[in-house]
Amino acid sequence: MRICFLNPFGTEKYDNLIKEVLVPSLREETELEVWHLNAGPRNLDYYAPKQLVQVEILKAAKAAEEAGFDAFVIGCLYDPALTEVRELVSIPVVGPLEASTAITRMFGHRYAVVTDHHKAVPELKDRLRVYGTDVNCLGVEAVGWFVDDMVEDPMSVAEETYGHVQDIMRRTGAETVLIGCTIVSACYELAYLRGRKELGELSVINPNLIAVKTAEMLADMNAAGQYRLARTGYYQNLAAHDPGQAAEVDPYFESTLYAPERIG
Amino acid sequence: MRICFLNPFGTEKYDNLIKEVLVPSLREETELEVWHLNAGPRNLDYYAPKQLVQVEILKAAKAAEEAGFDAFVIGCLYDPALTEVRELVSIPVVGPLEASTAITRMFGHRYAVVTDHHKAVPELKDRLRVYGTDVNCLGVEAVGWFVDDMVEDPMSVAEETYGHVQDIMRRTGAETVLIGCTIVSACYELAYLRGRKELGELSVINPNLIAVKTAEMLADMNAAGQYRLARTGYYQNLAAHDPGQAAEVDPYFESTLYAPERIG
Amino acid sequence: MRICFLNPFGTEKYDNLIKEVLVPSLREETELEVWHLNAGPRNLDYYAPKQLVQVEILKAAKAAEEAGFDAFVIGCLYDPALTEVRELVSIPVVGPLEASTAITRMFGHRYAVVTDHHKAVPELKDRLRVYGTDVNCLGVEAVGWFVDDMVEDPMSVAEETYGHVQDIMRRTGAETVLIGCTIVSACYELAYLRGRKELGELSVINPNLIAVKTAEMLADMNAAGQYRLARTGYYQNLAAHDPGQAAEVDPYFESTLYAPERIG
Amino acid sequence: MRICFLNPFGTEKYDNLIKEVLVPSLREETELEVWHLNAGPRNLDYYAPKQLVQVEILKAAKAAEEAGFDAFVIGCLYDPALTEVRELVSIPVVGPLEASTAITRMFGHRYAVVTDHHKAVPELKDRLRVYGTDVNCLGVEAVGWFVDDMVEDPMSVAEETYGHVQDIMRRTGAETVLIGCTIVSACYELAYLRGRKELGELSVINPNLIAVKTAEMLADMNAAGQYRLARTGYYQNLAAHDPGQAAEVDPYFESTLYAPERIG
Amino acid sequence: MRICFLNPFGTEKYDNLIKEVLVPSLREETELEVWHLNAGPRNLDYYAPKQLVQVEILKAAKAAEEAGFDAFVIGCLYDPALTEVRELVSIPVVGPLEASTAITRMFGHRYAVVTDHHKAVPELKDRLRVYGTDVNCLGVEAVGWFVDDMVEDPMSVAEETYGHVQDIMRRTGAETVLIGCTIVSACYELAYLRGRKELGELSVINPNLIAVKTAEMLADMNAAGQYRLARTGYYQNLAAHDPGQAAEVDPYFESTLYAPERIG
Amino acid sequence: MRICFLNPFGTEKYDNLIKEVLVPSLREETELEVWHLNAGPRNLDYYAPKQLVQVEILKAAKAAEEAGFDAFVIGCLYDPALTEVRELVSIPVVGPLEASTAITRMFGHRYAVVTDHHKAVPELKDRLRVYGTDVNCLGVEAVGWFVDDMVEDPMSVAEETYGHVQDIMRRTGAETVLIGCTIVSACYELAYLRGRKELGELSVINPNLIAVKTAEMLADMNAAGQYRLARTGYYQNLAAHDPGQAAEVDPYFESTLYAPERIG
Repeated sequence: MRICFLNPFGTEKYDNLIKEVLVPSLREETELEVWHLNAGPRNLDYYAPKQLVQVEILKAAKAAEEAGFDAFVIGCLYDPALTEVRELVSIPVVGPLEASTAITRMFGHRYAVVTDHHKAVPELKDRLRVYGTDVNCLGVEAVGWFVDDMVEDPMSVAEETYGHVQDIMRRTGAETVLIGCTIVSACYELAYLRGRKELGELSVINPNLIAVKTAEMLADMNAAGQYRLARTGYYQNLAAHDPGQAAEVDPYFESTLYAPERIG
Repeated sequence: MRICFLNPFGTEKYDNLIKEVLVPSLREETELEVWHLNAGPRNLDYYAPKQLVQVEILKAAKAAEEAGFDAFVIGCLYDPALTEVRELVSIPVVGPLEASTAITRMFGHRYAVVTDHHKAVPELKDRLRVYGTDVNCLGVEAVGWFVDDMVEDPMSVAEETYGHVQDIMRRTGAETVLIGCTIVSACYELAYLRGRKELGELSVINPNLIAVKTAEMLADMNAAGQYRLARTGYYQNLAAHDPGQAAEVDPYFESTLYAPERIG
Repeated sequence: MRICFLNPFGTEKYDNLIKEVLVPSLREETELEVWHLNAGPRNLDYYAPKQLVQVEILKAAKAAEEAGFDAFVIGCLYDPALTEVRELVSIPVVGPLEASTAITRMFGHRYAVVTDHHKAVPELKDRLRVYGTDVNCLGVEAVGWFVDDMVEDPMSVAEETYGHVQDIMRRTGAETVLIGCTIVSACYELAYLRGRKELGELSVINPNLIAVKTAEMLADMNAAGQYRLARTGYYQNLAAHDPGQAAEVDPYFESTLYAPERIG
Repeated sequence: MRICFLNPFGTEKYDNLIKEVLVPSLREETELEVWHLNAGPRNLDYYAPKQLVQVEILKAAKAAEEAGFDAFVIGCLYDPALTEVRELVSIPVVGPLEASTAITRMFGHRYAVVTDHHKAVPELKDRLRVYGTDVNCLGVEAVGWFVDDMVEDPMSVAEETYGHVQDIMRRTGAETVLIGCTIVSACYELAYLRGRKELGELSVINPNLIAVKTAEMLADMNAAGQYRLARTGYYQNLAAHDPGQAAEVDPYFESTLYAPERIG
Repeated sequence: MRICFLNPFGTEKYDNLIKEVLVPSLREETELEVWHLNAGPRNLDYYAPKQLVQVEILKAAKAAEEAGFDAFVIGCLYDPALTEVRELVSIPVVGPLEASTAITRMFGHRYAVVTDHHKAVPELKDRLRVYGTDVNCLGVEAVGWFVDDMVEDPMSVAEETYGHVQDIMRRTGAETVLIGCTIVSACYELAYLRGRKELGELSVINPNLIAVKTAEMLADMNAAGQYRLARTGYYQNLAAHDPGQAAEVDPYFESTLYAPERIG
Repeated sequence: MRICFLNPFGTEKYDNLIKEVLVPSLREETELEVWHLNAGPRNLDYYAPKQLVQVEILKAAKAAEEAGFDAFVIGCLYDPALTEVRELVSIPVVGPLEASTAITRMFGHRYAVVTDHHKAVPELKDRLRVYGTDVNCLGVEAVGWFVDDMVEDPMSVAEETYGHVQDIMRRTGAETVLIGCTIVSACYELAYLRGRKELGELSVINPNLIAVKTAEMLADMNAAGQYRLARTGYYQNLAAHDPGQAAEVDPYFESTLYAPERIG
């Protein structure tokens, strides 16, 4: 079982952090590789640069599939290019927001989201509406950090998030809180692993972990011939409609940057 | 990893069927035990008998927890007593409807449900509303079989379901269909395993499998200290509020019928 | 016109209180009998014990029907076993939450609910969603009392509720407030009857009274051949589907505890 | 208990029909008086004439209150001027659509509406949305009759409605059907009273009867000091805001046409 | 291009104010005429008087159509008689609430409404629900002025509104705010025109202007044969159904008060 | 008033068609320029190629702004990159789906969408949900043509669409139908201009025209200092947050392909 977790940021800065907090919770037989983008803008906080990043994500997904991964996780709570990647490749693809909001009721009655910064708030609300999971969501708020600053001081991110989670629970009545940013969540879990045990006592949903566990689940189902994705509309790919057009488009998604030899 | 899958029917008739269709898709290290109820009415199709069955499910869950299972699956798409069992025991509890409808978007745009008989239709619609997953549901319909009759002729159940799935997809535009009954789904998968490969080509969601995979996921998270269920309201148990009252209520859920020695 | 109002608590402690506050508002020809459960746990605040109570409610409803009552009121705002009882018996059955939220618009634009304690909040929200009456509901909050404590100090319950009602109106904009607990409402009305006239000046919905008035209405319609309950699905009973199975299940609902001779 | 049921049509043609079908279901102590409008256009099927009719309804309500009625029923499923009349007068006011859709769940899971003609369909849908009762409504359809023609042939109206009700139940899954027009419902009940017993076997909601029963209920509550209408916003009247302005407006609602001496 | 903007108040007091704030934003070729009602109550803040005003609006619309206007704007955020007028006349009819809430997403993610006084709040909420535009609305609140008082002190109205807008943005997260009253908005724009430039820096939607611009758009489309209003149901008029009945009703909408010679 | 209408297809094939059908409905002073993309895949029917196209749209918008246009219309009903372009540029940006669904109620009660092909259906449904305009939408269906084929036979497209519109009106009750594809709508209008007058008798919404008229409206408002877009979140651009980062990203959106000299 090999899972590719892509940090869709044009920097390697977050790779070790993600790996450090995920590895202790994985099954032994799961091999997790953390990738980052090496073209495009450094981050995707704003809509226009996000478009450029999404093209890079499509290329990376294509490369991961060719490299033989069993599943692909897009490591950002915007689930950037989730539908697009699912259309393009055959292996299971997981977005942490979709995967996490889907199972919030298993953790408590009604949920809220605490994300990184103010620009993410409307974007996440729009995603929840597309997914149909806004019904149980009592609020989306930002803790007020941009990813560039978080790696400088992950413990402060964790503490402020801990405070915000308690606050939003009290104000909205949400029983469980989804940390709506992979890096904020990673900071939170890092602090927890380093001894801030109180952080583990709140009902806080870890989207990085749920994304990877969901990837394991779908990869298992795929191996058992039970990953029955509908390829009739939403996830139908261009080749199924017109192989000629697909052949014209395919080269756009090729990139030596994410070539198999890079992995390992 | 030991998972208890409870057939909440007062008969052993379906146990082998469930096991037969689930085992080929499981991870090697997962040990699946299929239980059935041995008190209460034989089935739970109607609301009044379902109340009696739900009390038995609570007892069985208590027994499964005492027997050391890592997770408990309630094997019926009504998710009978799901919230109640989650309140009562500490191990992760999974209902196949909650678990499956949560992830329908991973299989296609909008879903429909095909269940067993007409009495189940309003009940399932009510459950979807409670979960907040009715937003993406385009219809709940019945194939017209009661469980008692299905074991007599599982292949016919499979064929009629196959036809109904194609029909509801065409009429409603649902891209993926959740089989809304554990036994109908088992019949469907049995036919598939026995060579009706076309059945595997539709985007049909197998709730038995997803329930067990979700149980694995939550049990993994529990083992890693990441199963952070909110015990503040919805799933707070009576003992947390008043240990004295809990001590008075506990004996109601004890039963020699589901004693640990029975297992194995 | 004989109406049975069941206190679904395993104690007679609340019977007189309910009777005291209801009788002054009844029509002369209405005979109201207040029952309580005499088996099962004392209260139903938590989900697991509530399951046990719901079985007792089914037995009591059966007994009330046999005793010739014209309608049956389940005296708790959870409307415990409402759908189940309606399926089981032929006489009209009323749940105070369903009956009261249905007519909130007749009292003001948008409503809120003030219930007893925190555990009731998610349960009531789920019920409103099942009923489809959450659309106009601006909030469900708890005044912070458990029923066991209320009979000790009904005047304090009334005062705190009075304050909470004013507060939730101001914060949410709800024009009318449904008291979401039979006992809290009874305390409130008791204080009103004892001279706290200000309590009657707020737009506060009395669910006990509305439940009984709705029972009168449905019983009147039943007598006139106009109580046309659909027995085709939601409220179809097991006997209509399979008399043999129904005969097997019926004994579970028999109980000497609620035998006709007990009444009077 | 005196209830005024207003036929908001500028003709006496329907008065006897309404009375004939309602009286057999009433309580003995209820005195029902059926009024009709004697100014304004004959009917209110279209929006522009309906405005004129609504002004007449306000005058009639004012006259009914002055004549000492205990409650006022607006006898049309558009609930024309319902909010407006409730603002203007002190006695309870009932609209049959609001009163009937509120309690549909007591009759079956999900409902549909069968109304008179195509122009009523969007109007009723808008009303249901304002009330928040569209959530459980599976369809609003017209049987295709205008009121002017119905009195000529009530038996045909009844038969076609009977067919349409069965049809909409089958197509939509609605378990109960609200007859969405006072006159269509009256024709239906007339046929039933005259021996078409099959019509009473469907779960068909009679809005005329429910409106009157709800009027009884609210009048009873009013007599007991329990009709706690919020006068803070939606139903606050102009006099409460500015008695001077109210005095200027009041004369518009006075009319000798509905003077007390007319009644009897 | 001639547009009639009707102040549906029985006074000429607001006509100059409206004209003063609208004219600077209009296209050169647009001729805007501001009318007011000269019968009926002075204002329409309460439901009962609003009924009377709505009849006058119908008469005024009829007169405007006869006077050859290309479009008719009902200058009040209640959109009083909007559907009714659209049914009655052939020229395009615009209500500022419908026109403005429709395009809020072009100004920001989610909106709120700040209206004049408390009585307007439930009315506006009901309208948004009918339109289906409540989905993106985070709140409707009142600044606390009645129209009669505003003309006395428009600068205070503007300042308080400016404060309230900032406040509701902060509390609800609404990015844009619709001023939910033509006169409040006119006061706001007047202050802006008179030099309070900060007021123009907030994302505040001016419903008077959007109504007039929408009227221009629909009139342009009408001139190009592209104003394809459905006359099959909602906006079908009585004459299309029954010319005889229409001929009986027409005289009610005639009024010498709004005769063509008045215009100019 | 200069408006740039971008055909987001990598071909000039549709430019004349769009111009031909739009020009007859425009105001005299409006200068409409139709652009197409000259890089990226030819069309954007599938999600992965659409990502590439969206990057080109951003470049084209940037070029249009630099070329001094007063507004920019994205000529595809997916509204591709609408939010992104609005974030990136300062001039008003219009998407035909957003603009058209916003005002459907002005044309009839409830609407449906008829788009080109099956792949567009889920995409449009997702867009409507993001906009919050799905509330009044009764269906989204495809007429079954891909854009590549339409220019070959526009009259057949028009006839089949005409039939489909009538059919969906009859089946769903939608009173007005939005043509959910710029090219299908252009074919429809072309047939209408060439003499198929019946096509203009249905309530069919022309999204190309409404997009351009909305662009005129917003450009007018912009000129009058009344285009008060919120730049605080959804439409805040990167430069407002971090000019340094914006300077790094800007070069990605520069393209000689859409340079000003090209225009003329």
